[in-house]
Amino acid sequence: MIRYNPTKRIQTALKNKDTKVLKSLCETLHPASMAGLLVDFEYDDVWNIIRGVSPQLRADIFSHLEVSMQTDVAQHISRRELATLVTYMSHDDRVDLIKRLPEDIAEKLMSALAEKERTDIRNLASYPEGTAGSVMTSEYVSLPDNITAQQAIDLIRQEASDKETIYNAYVVDGEHKLIGFATLKDLILAKPDKIIRDFMSKEMIYAYALDDQESVARTIAKYDRISIPVINEDNTLLGIVTHDDALDVIEEEYTEDIEKFMAISGSHDSDGYLATPVTTHFRNRIYWVVILAFMGIMSGVVLHHFEETLSTMMILALYLPMLMDTGGNTGSQAATVVIRSLALGDVKSKDIFLVVWKELRIALMISGILGLLAFGRVMFLSRNTVIPAGFDLVHIAWVIALSLSFQVISATLIGALLPMVVSKAKLDPAVVASPAITTLVDITGLLIYFTTATALLAV
Amino acid sequence: MIRYNPTKRIQTALKNKDTKVLKSLCETLHPASMAGLLVDFEYDDVWNIIRGVSPQLRADIFSHLEVSMQTDVAQHISRRELATLVTYMSHDDRVDLIKRLPEDIAEKLMSALAEKERTDIRNLASYPEGTAGSVMTSEYVSLPDNITAQQAIDLIRQEASDKETIYNAYVVDGEHKLIGFATLKDLILAKPDKIIRDFMSKEMIYAYALDDQESVARTIAKYDRISIPVINEDNTLLGIVTHDDALDVIEEEYTEDIEKFMAISGSHDSDGYLATPVTTHFRNRIYWVVILAFMGIMSGVVLHHFEETLSTMMILALYLPMLMDTGGNTGSQAATVVIRSLALGDVKSKDIFLVVWKELRIALMISGILGLLAFGRVMFLSRNTVIPAGFDLVHIAWVIALSLSFQVISATLIGALLPMVVSKAKLDPAVVASPAITTLVDITGLLIYFTTATALLAV
Repeated sequence: MIRYNPTKRIQTALKNKDTKVLKSLCETLHPASMAGLLVDFEYDDVWNIIRGVSPQLRADIFSHLEVSMQTDVAQHISRRELATLVTYMSHDDRVDLIKRLPEDIAEKLMSALAEKERTDIRNLASYPEGTAGSVMTSEYVSLPDNITAQQAIDLIRQEASDKETIYNAYVVDGEHKLIGFATLKDLILAKPDKIIRDFMSKEMIYAYALDDQESVARTIAKYDRISIPVINEDNTLLGIVTHDDALDVIEEEYTEDIEKFMAISGSHDSDGYLATPVTTHFRNRIYWVVILAFMGIMSGVVLHHFEETLSTMMILALYLPMLMDTGGNTGSQAATVVIRSLALGDVKSKDIFLVVWKELRIALMISGILGLLAFGRVMFLSRNTVIPAGFDLVHIAWVIALSLSFQVISATLIGALLPMVVSKAKLDPAVVASPAITTLVDITGLLIYFTTATALLAV
Repeated sequence: MIRYNPTKRIQTALKNKDTKVLKSLCETLHPASMAGLLVDFEYDDVWNIIRGVSPQLRADIFSHLEVSMQTDVAQHISRRELATLVTYMSHDDRVDLIKRLPEDIAEKLMSALAEKERTDIRNLASYPEGTAGSVMTSEYVSLPDNITAQQAIDLIRQEASDKETIYNAYVVDGEHKLIGFATLKDLILAKPDKIIRDFMSKEMIYAYALDDQESVARTIAKYDRISIPVINEDNTLLGIVTHDDALDVIEEEYTEDIEKFMAISGSHDSDGYLATPVTTHFRNRIYWVVILAFMGIMSGVVLHHFEETLSTMMILALYLPMLMDTGGNTGSQAATVVIRSLALGDVKSKDIFLVVWKELRIALMISGILGLLAFGRVMFLSRNTVIPAGFDLVHIAWVIALSLSFQVISATLIGALLPMVVSKAKLDPAVVASPAITTLVDITGLLIYFTTATALLAV
C-alpha cells in the first residue's frame, strides 16, 4: 500500500476542481478525521470541499469543524445553503452555531427554516450558558407506557435516523411528563409482547434544565449512563444530555478551573489559543495581575515598616526571596490538593477540621526538613556576609530557619483553609487563585519573619 | 410523602438485623447511589448490608464502592464469597481489585476461580498501568462477518447479560482479527437478511493495547463513540474501552496534570484525600519542595553577589518581593495557557514562533500597565524612605518600574517557551511545574533588576 498525504490530495483535487475525488475523500474518512484535516484550509476552500456530499454527511463534517471556522463558513454561504446545513445538524450543535452568528444573519436564517425547527431552536437557545439546558438536545426517543417491547423497537427503528441516541428511551405520560426509562438492551431482552410500563425502570436519574452543566456531566459519569434526561420543575421532559457532551463539558470545565486557579479570568470558548486575539488574552490576564499588584502593596507596607531592621541587619534581606518562594510553593500545594479533593467530592466543606489536622501534620514534616536546609544554606552562602557587631552567624541562621519553618506551617494552613472556607460559603473553591494565595502568604510571611527576627535577635 | 434519611434507615436495619429492609433498600436505589451511602459505614457493616442481595446486584454495588473500601471488604470475607463476588464483577473492575489485594489473598482467590476467569484476569492484568490495555474490558460483543443482521441481533440478545455494552459489535475473522464494526443501530436498521460483511463499517478507529490511556480517552471523545476496540500489533481484537472508562481516565489525568503542574509528585490513585496517609501526602509534596529549595540557592548566589549594591541602596531591597511575585505570576499564567493549549491540541510544538510572537505582544501590554503601577507604588510607599545622597526618588522609581517591565516580558516568554521546548522534546509539558517557573524567573528577575539598577543608577 502506498502511503499518501490526504491534505496534499485535497489540495490537488481543489486546484483541479476534481469534485469526485473530494467527495470520495469525505465519504471514506470519519467526519471528525475529515474536519481535522480541514483546519489548515481557508473557509471558502472548506465549503468547496464539503458542499458536494450528501446534506447529512456535509452537516456531520461541518459540526466537527472548529467553532471559528463554522462561523466563517456560515457567514459566507447563501441563506438557502445555510438553512439546509442547519436543518441536518444535530439540535444542540446548531443552536451553538446560531448563537455565535451575527444577528442579521441569524435572523435571515431563522426565517428560512421550517416552523418546527424554528421553535425547537428558540426553545434550546433559551437556556443560559453553562446550564444543563444549554448542552441538551431535543433529538431523543420518547415512548408511551402502554405499548409492547416489540412495538417500541419498531417505533425506534422508524425514528432512529433522526435521534442522537436510540439506546435510551424515555417513557412519558400524556402530558409529556417523565415517568420511566428503558434501554434498548431492556427492550431487546424483554419478551416481545410485554408492556413497557411493566418492565421500565422507574429510578429517576435526571437533571433540571437550570442545573449546572458540570453537575450533569458528573451525574452521567457517576451512573455510567449514555444519556440522562433533562426535565423542568413539573417533570416535563425537555431533552437529553449525552455522554459525548459530558466529556466536552468536563474538558471545558477543567480548562476553566485550571485557568481560574492560575489567575486567568474569562470563560473559555472553543476558539483555540492561536485563534484568540492578543487583546482577549491580555484582558483575561491583566485583571488578576492588577489585583495582585494592589494586594502586593500590603507587603510593601510591611517591608517599609521594618526598613530600619533591614538596614541594620542587611543579611535578612538576602533571605527574603527564599522565605517568599517557599511560602508560595507550600501554600499553593496545599490549596491545589484541597481544591481538587473538593471538586472530586473526596472532601466536603464540613470536613474542615479533618483537613486542618491533616495539613498541620504534613506541614510539620515539611517545615522540619526545609528549616534544616535553610540553616545549611545561610551557613554556606553567607559565610562572608558582613554581620553587625555583637551577632554571630549561627544564631542568625537559626532565626532565619525558624522563621521559614513557621512560614511553611502558616502558608500550608492558609492554602488549605481558604478553599474550605470559600466552599463553605457555597462558592467555587477554584476562585482562590494560587497567585492570590502566594501574595497573601507573602504578607503573613513578612510579618512572621520580622517578628521572629526582632524578638530573637533584638534588632 | 414523608422525607426520610436513607443512611438512618440503613443504620436502624443493621442494628435490628433486619435483612429484608436492607435487601429492599439495595434493590430500590441505583448501585452507584447505594455505594455513595455506604462511605460512612465500616467494612463489616458494608458487607452485611450487601451480602443478602443477588450476586449480580451485590457485585454492582461493590464495584461502585471506593477502592480502599473494596480492598478492606475483600480481605475480610471468605474465599468462597470473594470468588463469587469477583465472578460477577465486570472484567476491568475485578482486575483493578485483584491488583490491589495482598499477594496471598489474590493467589488464594485465583485458585478458587474457574480456569476461564483466571486466564481472562491474567490477560487483562498483564498490561502496564496507564495503558489502554489496563483500562479495557473483555466483555465485548464480537461477530463473524458471514451472518445476517437478524442472526446478529439474536446472538447479541443471548449474550447481552454478560457484556459491558451491546451497542457496538466488533466483526472479526477466523483468527479473531478485527475487520469491521457495526452498531446495534446499524443492525436494527439493516434489512434482517442482509449479511454483516456487506454493511459493516470498515473505517478503523481503534487503540493499541500499549497506547497511553489518555489518548484512548481522547479518541473516544473525538469520535463520540460508546466504545472503541483495543487490538495488538497483528490486529487481533483484545478488548474494548468504554465511554464511562474514558470519563474516569480524563478525570484521573486531569488531577495528575494539575498536581504535577503545582509541583506535587506521585500518581493519583482512587483513594481520597482523607483516606491517603499523611506520610504519602508528605512524600508527594516534599520532592519538589526540596528541589526548589536547591534551585533557590542560585537566586541566593545572585543576591549575595549584589550585596553591596543593596547596602548602598536599601530601597532596592524593599521592591524585591514585588519583582519576584509579579514575575512568578505572569510566567505561570503564560505557562498555564500554553500547557493547556498543547494538551487540547490547539497548539502544536511546531507553532513555537507563533506562540512567542503572541506572548511577546501580550507581555508588552501587561508590562506597560504594571510598569506604571510600580512607578506609582514607589512614589507613594517610599516617599519617606532614606535615599543615598545624589539620587532622587523619581529617578529610582523609573528604574524600578523599568526593571519590572523587563521582568514581566522575560518571565512571560520563559513561561511560554519552557513547555513548548519540553513538548518539542516529546515530554509531557505539564512537567514544567509552575513553582519551578517561579523559581527560575526569580533568578533571571534578580539579574535583570540589579543589571538595570547598576547600569542606570551607577551604584
